[in-house]
Amino acid sequence: MSDKLSEQMICAMSGGVGGAKLALGLARVLRPGALAVIANTGDDFDHLGLRIWPDFDTLLYTLADIANPETGWGRAGETWTFMRTLSALGGEDWFQLGDADLAVHVIRTEMLRRGLSASDIALRLTQAFKVEHVIAPATESCVRTVLNTEDCEMPFQDYFVRERCAPIVRGVRYDGAERAQPSPVFRRALSGDCRGFILCPSNPLLSLEPILSITGVRQALRDRQAPLVAVCPIIGGEAVKGPSVKILNELGEDATALGFAARYSDILDAILIDPADSDHGADIRKLGVSVVETPILMTTLDDKKRVANDVLRTLEALA
Amino acid sequence: MSDKLSEQMICAMSGGVGGAKLALGLARVLRPGALAVIANTGDDFDHLGLRIWPDFDTLLYTLADIANPETGWGRAGETWTFMRTLSALGGEDWFQLGDADLAVHVIRTEMLRRGLSASDIALRLTQAFKVEHVIAPATESCVRTVLNTEDCEMPFQDYFVRERCAPIVRGVRYDGAERAQPSPVFRRALSGDCRGFILCPSNPLLSLEPILSITGVRQALRDRQAPLVAVCPIIGGEAVKGPSVKILNELGEDATALGFAARYSDILDAILIDPADSDHGADIRKLGVSVVETPILMTTLDDKKRVANDVLRTLEALA
Repeated sequence: MSDKLSEQMICAMSGGVGGAKLALGLARVLRPGALAVIANTGDDFDHLGLRIWPDFDTLLYTLADIANPETGWGRAGETWTFMRTLSALGGEDWFQLGDADLAVHVIRTEMLRRGLSASDIALRLTQAFKVEHVIAPATESCVRTVLNTEDCEMPFQDYFVRERCAPIVRGVRYDGAERAQPSPVFRRALSGDCRGFILCPSNPLLSLEPILSITGVRQALRDRQAPLVAVCPIIGGEAVKGPSVKILNELGEDATALGFAARYSDILDAILIDPADSDHGADIRKLGVSVVETPILMTTLDDKKRVANDVLRTLEALA
Repeated sequence: MSDKLSEQMICAMSGGVGGAKLALGLARVLRPGALAVIANTGDDFDHLGLRIWPDFDTLLYTLADIANPETGWGRAGETWTFMRTLSALGGEDWFQLGDADLAVHVIRTEMLRRGLSASDIALRLTQAFKVEHVIAPATESCVRTVLNTEDCEMPFQDYFVRERCAPIVRGVRYDGAERAQPSPVFRRALSGDCRGFILCPSNPLLSLEPILSITGVRQALRDRQAPLVAVCPIIGGEAVKGPSVKILNELGEDATALGFAARYSDILDAILIDPADSDHGADIRKLGVSVVETPILMTTLDDKKRVANDVLRTLEALA
């Protein structure tokens, strides 16, 4: 399949595990090639000489139906011989690298060394894994999420994996975002080659903002023609997974469905919220954002397809 | 343990599988720390962004008692998930990298990136694997064995692994040898801090020459005080393993025990040859090289210890 976006394509912006659930639903209900998932690159990092793209890989494995259903990240049926040996030798073992997963990091790093762009590599990997949709990095530039914690600044993976989100966050910045350009796939979507945008239910500060902070992206989304619908990552004041509510609270921001809608009211046409948050519906509508109230917790594949269909119907109604 | 060579140390120059058999015998009969194995670096190469030291690793795994007894290289009980995935993704799969083995390559490459010397890395790896002797690279410089074949020049691993030694060899060169210096451990041994030198039964053109061609090494061995004994890698006109006889024949050189002894007669005090080659004994002695006739085929650990003891007794007799 080609990486060419047709006018009929849907462009979904996503982080890892949470967003990947909706991406999988969309991938299953849309015809092959009709979906472009734009992956957050703010978590990307270099580890043991390997370039690792956590969110892209989670999306890749999820859409290839080989993701580990227990964790949401990594591969099902993975083996851990490398990691055990690395630990035994005193190597850096705080980031889990399965033996099969490792092949992807090694191949990607080798392609980067040979001068391939991040977009070309993403295309080759999705083809190698027989994913029939596009998964593209948000940018080919280096954008890195950095957390300003009480003690020090730390890169995302240090905060997220090594420190298990324990430090109190005082600020988040997206290093390199102001110099970054959207990747070719993302740029074409933003230029109008797209029939609908979706904000997947991902952590706003750690997954969506690193995408939206890329130069020109937020303005292009304000100026766009196609509708934009979000699925709220917060249900009943709790994040389904991950530290978004913790961080929002530490930053003194509104960690509710309303807060999420308000943060993106300049670009949102509509938002799907859970019935648990129905008391926020009226206030969200006051922001000029349409509200669709529907169960958005996605556990089974059927849940994912149902929410995907809800999103697509909402986009169609707005078109 | 320290990498300091004492005056009582034995310095054994070795390639991979064949030499490692004697190195294991020596390691078992000498007291801990009394052996420095100098590893050929001519086979070292970069693959998939990883620095691979095939002969060093074979020596490391052999002395750590974790080598694969079937192959002589790689690790016992290895898993192959990485390799299978790499193949499935269309990656370069001609060089076998086990999942546990991979941890060594990743750690080594990372240490090189951090600026550690090859000697420091060798020391750390031998310590991590609890090897109680020294295994040091022959040089910290880049020396690469290059085969001039009928069709083209090719790096060692291309010839040895990818082409399975099929091409006809017209010449062998050791790229970088004239600019290389012996590693600190090897240099101290060559400077006199050593009670005996051993040429392990390794391929002369592919394992011993890349060591001996390092600037000053052969002259230092000619000028040395301590005795030097070789174990012949050829038995009854056949190499125990590998392509040495094939290559020697293609180059029109004498592929016998006599030919081996003649090649090194400027540095050899004595050579262990197999009873199968006893008809070469007189001619070898005419070269001024003492001959010890003893079974040198090493299959069991007992064989390896017996040959090691034969070598050590010969060194003592010459001292």
